Amino acid sequence: MSEALATLREDEGAVVILDQTRLPGARQFCRLSTLEQAAEAIRVMRVRGAPLIGATAAYGVALGLAEEGGDTRLDHVLATLGATRPTAVNLHWALDRMAAVLRPLPAASRRAVAWTEARAIAAEDAAANGAIGVHGLALLQEIHARNLALPGAGHSPTHDIDCVNVMTHCNAGWLATVAHGTALAPVYAAREAGLPLHVWVSETRPRNQGLLTAWELDQAGAPHTVIADNAAGLLLMQGRVDCVIVGADRIAANGDTANKVGTYLKALAARAHGVPFYVAAPLSTIDFACFTGGDIPIEERDGNELGHGLVPVANPAFDVTPAALITAIITERGVCRPDQLASLQP
Amino acid sequence: MSEALATLREDEGAVVILDQTRLPGARQFCRLSTLEQAAEAIRVMRVRGAPLIGATAAYGVALGLAEEGGDTRLDHVLATLGATRPTAVNLHWALDRMAAVLRPLPAASRRAVAWTEARAIAAEDAAANGAIGVHGLALLQEIHARNLALPGAGHSPTHDIDCVNVMTHCNAGWLATVAHGTALAPVYAAREAGLPLHVWVSETRPRNQGLLTAWELDQAGAPHTVIADNAAGLLLMQGRVDCVIVGADRIAANGDTANKVGTYLKALAARAHGVPFYVAAPLSTIDFACFTGGDIPIEERDGNELGHGLVPVANPAFDVTPAALITAIITERGVCRPDQLASLQP
Repeated sequence: MSEALATLREDEGAVVILDQTRLPGARQFCRLSTLEQAAEAIRVMRVRGAPLIGATAAYGVALGLAEEGGDTRLDHVLATLGATRPTAVNLHWALDRMAAVLRPLPAASRRAVAWTEARAIAAEDAAANGAIGVHGLALLQEIHARNLALPGAGHSPTHDIDCVNVMTHCNAGWLATVAHGTALAPVYAAREAGLPLHVWVSETRPRNQGLLTAWELDQAGAPHTVIADNAAGLLLMQGRVDCVIVGADRIAANGDTANKVGTYLKALAARAHGVPFYVAAPLSTIDFACFTGGDIPIEERDGNELGHGLVPVANPAFDVTPAALITAIITERGVCRPDQLASLQP
Repeated sequence: MSEALATLREDEGAVVILDQTRLPGARQFCRLSTLEQAAEAIRVMRVRGAPLIGATAAYGVALGLAEEGGDTRLDHVLATLGATRPTAVNLHWALDRMAAVLRPLPAASRRAVAWTEARAIAAEDAAANGAIGVHGLALLQEIHARNLALPGAGHSPTHDIDCVNVMTHCNAGWLATVAHGTALAPVYAAREAGLPLHVWVSETRPRNQGLLTAWELDQAGAPHTVIADNAAGLLLMQGRVDCVIVGADRIAANGDTANKVGTYLKALAARAHGVPFYVAAPLSTIDFACFTGGDIPIEERDGNELGHGLVPVANPAFDVTPAALITAIITERGVCRPDQLASLQP
């Protein structure tokens, strides 16, 4: 991506975000100058993706403290941002980290430190995702080598096995993070390494974040095909998918993973056909205080997101994929089985 | 439904269909007077649903033979209709049945017989689906009785167990048939029997046939909730679904079942949570010449159906649910396990 297309950047005491509710149709930036603007941007999904929500919340604290009298209202600032969205734990992780640094300080010193800490959170996210790309690339290279060793490589009518076929869900690319992406970080690393690949992109109803993924991949020149979410099972059954890689909104201590609704169905289908299912996420997405997926709150969003007028609608935004269906979790520290997460606990 | 809302009816040498591409927004009827009009109605899905496609094709033969010189062009008529859509076997079943009756006749006698045979096919479909409703109702009554016997019945926060929660996919209601529907026939029978129920309706991208189901259920006063296809796994995991009932486009001799794309994902999730998964279809949907699901052709439809402009798209319209995931198949002859289908062979 070009610098101009950063998901979030500082600009003279404010934060400029790429408004993702306008993508891929229009590239429009929003200038966030107040706590309420930051909270609204998260709530209505102008910024989205667990890591980016975390970084935006951190900057939101800085914006809130910068308001008149804001330096004495730390708790109000934290509570306002904390109430925006329930599922992605990066939000609470970032707010907790800001609170831990800011609370011991005298109010007058908080403003400057809030900016430096938010900047550190953002920079660490970019670095973590870069490392996820490197670790994930090794997995894709293994798959590629295995495919090439298959009898009849390159001659399957339904499956080009010279090329690694990755399936993803929702958008866990650079748009969902400060940089690089999580699930797409290995894809971008593979592009740079010259590894031939193709990405199946499910449209991800009801909000169609798959179109954000298609837009990112198009910008990067990465071959991809958009499908209805419903088509994932057929493609896996037909042997046209080498691995599934998704991001995460919250990973419980036992490895159960909340991610965009529909992820679980892909995990079930991947397992049914022996296709590896990877979750890519920075350590900030792991909630060691949450023992299992059953403890993760699932956000119910406005039924109007489905766009069907007056029909009765339910619109849960996330689901939980049990650890047993997850082949491995890719973090900035490497690739680990979900039952080994405890070794990553800080 | 009122008589005026029949999916298909004869009208003085023509056939009047309810144009399903205009539903649920507008109730518009199309008058089919020629072979080409009948073929077009099937191809672009003005009529849809395997049983209705079969009945429309049968009438299409009558319309084709009624054209000037048509009575001598039986093969052309059959081939034109046979090429409209590949997956639903009822199309070929109806055409084969018409051919078997008409071919031995002198050309001059075919026209009148074509109408009577088409009429018989339509009437038999309505009767078969009525019987499916009766057999399916017994299954729903069993579930209801079992729910009521559970400790704490009626007091679950997420699941009203006084009420049978049915999940369906796509539209297999009266709109997909000549009358009564297949998957929805038991639902309508349950309404008449006073059994309390609620239906989860997945929107069924890319064509949103779930909205047809919601419209049907609304007309019938049956409680229902529309969900994104992606939400099915979460609802099953949460214990909010008592059974899944879907229709079918083609059932292979071994019980593998092709139905609207996305059905397979629901079957996997139902199995993961021990929820029964039923296929409701008349015998005309069983293709005993097709040994397994691998032999069923999967229609690839125009990518524009997804409505995402210029992005690269794949749009398979069906998938195959393996017999092993199907609890039972409900036909007009009763409820049978998929491995018992051979007993139904004519």
